[in-house]
Amino acid sequence: MLDFDYQAETRILFGKDKIKGIAGEIKKYSARVLLVYGKGSIKTNGIHQELVSILNENKISFNELSGIEPNPKISSVRQGIALCRVHELDFILAVGGGSVIDCAKAIACGVYSEKDPWDFFIKKSEIIKALPIGVILTLSATGSESNGFSVISNKDTEEKLGIGHDILKPKFSILDPSYTFTVSSKQSAYGVVDIYSHLLEQYFSPEKGTFLQDRLAESLMKTCIHYGAKVLTKPNNYEFRAQLMWASSLSLNGLLSCGKTGDWSTHFIEHAVSAVYDIAHGLGLAIITPYWMEYVLGAKDSGKFADYGRNVFSLQGQDDAAIGRDAIEQTKAFFKSLGLPSRLKDVGVEEGSLGQMAKKATKFGSIGSYSKLDTNDVYEILKTAY
Amino acid sequence: MLDFDYQAETRILFGKDKIKGIAGEIKKYSARVLLVYGKGSIKTNGIHQELVSILNENKISFNELSGIEPNPKISSVRQGIALCRVHELDFILAVGGGSVIDCAKAIACGVYSEKDPWDFFIKKSEIIKALPIGVILTLSATGSESNGFSVISNKDTEEKLGIGHDILKPKFSILDPSYTFTVSSKQSAYGVVDIYSHLLEQYFSPEKGTFLQDRLAESLMKTCIHYGAKVLTKPNNYEFRAQLMWASSLSLNGLLSCGKTGDWSTHFIEHAVSAVYDIAHGLGLAIITPYWMEYVLGAKDSGKFADYGRNVFSLQGQDDAAIGRDAIEQTKAFFKSLGLPSRLKDVGVEEGSLGQMAKKATKFGSIGSYSKLDTNDVYEILKTAY
Repeated sequence: MLDFDYQAETRILFGKDKIKGIAGEIKKYSARVLLVYGKGSIKTNGIHQELVSILNENKISFNELSGIEPNPKISSVRQGIALCRVHELDFILAVGGGSVIDCAKAIACGVYSEKDPWDFFIKKSEIIKALPIGVILTLSATGSESNGFSVISNKDTEEKLGIGHDILKPKFSILDPSYTFTVSSKQSAYGVVDIYSHLLEQYFSPEKGTFLQDRLAESLMKTCIHYGAKVLTKPNNYEFRAQLMWASSLSLNGLLSCGKTGDWSTHFIEHAVSAVYDIAHGLGLAIITPYWMEYVLGAKDSGKFADYGRNVFSLQGQDDAAIGRDAIEQTKAFFKSLGLPSRLKDVGVEEGSLGQMAKKATKFGSIGSYSKLDTNDVYEILKTAY
Repeated sequence: MLDFDYQAETRILFGKDKIKGIAGEIKKYSARVLLVYGKGSIKTNGIHQELVSILNENKISFNELSGIEPNPKISSVRQGIALCRVHELDFILAVGGGSVIDCAKAIACGVYSEKDPWDFFIKKSEIIKALPIGVILTLSATGSESNGFSVISNKDTEEKLGIGHDILKPKFSILDPSYTFTVSSKQSAYGVVDIYSHLLEQYFSPEKGTFLQDRLAESLMKTCIHYGAKVLTKPNNYEFRAQLMWASSLSLNGLLSCGKTGDWSTHFIEHAVSAVYDIAHGLGLAIITPYWMEYVLGAKDSGKFADYGRNVFSLQGQDDAAIGRDAIEQTKAFFKSLGLPSRLKDVGVEEGSLGQMAKKATKFGSIGSYSKLDTNDVYEILKTAY
C-alpha cells in the first residue's frame, strides 16, 4: 500500500429530521447563504418549505439559485458566483444530489477567482480559497456530500471535467434517508450504479498489500447488491434508503483510496460520453463498466478479478480467470436487476461519435492505473459497449 | 439502524518517515509542547532522537513526562497537569501506544479543571475544554490515536475507568508502521486482540438494519485474522504492520458504531480484572471474550453469531446455533494461534477475587446492550473463564 494523509472533515448528521439542527451548523460559519437546488422537487416534497422556515426563524438571510440540472453546467456556476458577489453571501447551502453539490463547490471557489471558473477545470487556474459549503442530501449516488470533488459540464466545448480540493469538502452534510423516498426508480438505480462504480474504481488499483482496503470496498459492494433491487420495489423503506445513503457517502469520502491510487478509467470514459449525449452518469457507468472489465481482465494476472468474484459474489473454483469472467457476468446481471440497458446504442449514442468520445476521454493523456488505456483502447471499449 | 453524528476529525499521516512533517502540524496549534512517552523504548529505537532534533530545528520548546506504564495511572496524569501549568505548555504530544495517548488525553482536559482529574472518571466533574493533542503511534492496538476515549487506572481505589469526549480526539496522528517493527511478539498479539475485541464489541449490538456496518466490521476482523499470526513470525514486514496499524485506527474511530450502540461488556469485565491484577488489556480480552460469547449465545436468536461464523470464518450450514458455537471455537483458535492463554488462573488471577471483580464491572449498573448483564451474570462469566 502507498502512504497517505486522510481526514474525513465533513460532519455527517444522519437520520430522520436532522434538518432541525441545521441553523446551528450554518451559524458556525455565516448568516448570509446562497441556497442552491435543482428543478424544484424540494418544493413538492416539503424540504424547501421546512428549510426556509428554519432559516427565517434563525434570522439567516439567503438568496436562491435554482434549476440546477443533472450534469450541471458552467453557466449555472457563473450565475451562482454573480449572486454571491452582488449579495455578499458567505456560505453555500446545496440541497440536492451530486449535481447540485458539485455546482455549489465550483461556485464556492469561483467566488475567489478573478478568472472564469471554467479555468479551474482546464487547469488554467488554481483553487486557493473557497466559501464554506453545507449540504442537505436528497439523492444517494455521487458521494459528493463527503468529498472535495466537483464535475461540471461545458456545453460550448462539449466537455465534462472535474476538480478536487480539500477546501471544497462540505463542512456538514445532512443525510436524512426519508428525503430519498420520492426518488424515482430510474434515478435510484442510477444512484446505486454510481456508488458501485466508485467502489470498483478504487478496488481495481495496481498496489499490492491492500487487503484491508479491498475487504472494506467489498463490504460496500455487497451492501449495494443487497439493497439495490430491493429499494426499487420498496422506495419508502427507511432501512433500504438509509443503508444506500450511508454507502454513498462512505464510498467516496477518501477512506477507500487510503494507500491506493484507484483506476477511474470508466469514469473518464463515461464523462466523455455524457459530455456529448446528456445521459445520466449512473446509466453511462452501468453500460461501460462491464466492457471495461472484459477489456482489462486479460491485462494482468486475474487475481484481483478472482478476489472480486469470490468475495463479492461467493463464486467457487480454482481457476482465477474463469472466476473473473463469471464475476463480470454477475456484474452485468446486477445492473440488469436494476432495470438498466447494457448498450450505448440503447440510450441514443451514435456509432459515428465513438471516436470523438475516445479522444475526449484521453484528452489529458492515457487513463487508468490498474490498466493504462490510450485513445485506441478506449475506442475498442466503446465499440464493444456499443 | 440508529441516527448518528459522525466526523473523523483526526488527521492521519500514514507511512514511513511521516514524522518529518510533524513540526508543521504542531505549529498549527502551539510552540510549547508536553512530550509524553513510556518507559524509554522510543530512545532505543531512535524515534526520540529524531523527534527532538525536529523540534529543536523548528524552535518548538518542550518538557517531558516519561515513564508512563501500561494501564496508565491517575498519578501520572496529575504529574502531567502540573508540568503543563508550571511551564505554560499548550500542546500535548503523545509518543507511544494507547496508554501514553490515554494519559495525554486526561492531562489535556485536566489542565482546565480545578478539581482532581480522577473526578472526570467518577463522573463528579465535566470535560469542558482541553489542550490540543498530537500522536506518534508506536503500537497498533487501542485505536486511541483516532478517538476521544481515555482509560485510566487508580491504584488507590483499584479502579480502571474511562472517559470520552470529542475535544479529546487527537488533532493529528502519525502512523509509521516501521515504528512497530520492534514491538515484541507478546505485545503484538495483545494488540491484535484489542483491535479484534473493539470490532466484536461494536458488531454485537442489538440494532437491526445494520448490514453495511456489520460487513465493514467483518472486513476488519478478517484483516486481523489474516495478518495476526503472520506479524508474529515476521515482525519487520511492512505490509503486515501497516495493515494492522490502519486496522487499529479504523476499528475505533467512530465509523463502525455509526447507527449502533455497541455492547462493550467484555471491556467492562476486563477493566475490572486488570484494575485488580495488572495484566495487559489485550491478554485479559483474549481470555474473557470467548466465555462472554458462550454465555450470551443463547440469550437471543443466534442470527448474529451465525453471520459472524459464515462471514468471518466461512462456516457452512443451515443451523444458526451450531454455526454460532463453531464460530466461538474458531475465535478461541484464533487467539490460540497468537500464543495466548485461555484461562484467568493462567495469568495469576485468584479465584477468591472473582466476586469483587464482578461487582467492579457493574459498579454503575448492568452492562452490555446485545445482552444485558448484571453482577451475577458477570460472576458466572468470570467463573467459566477461570
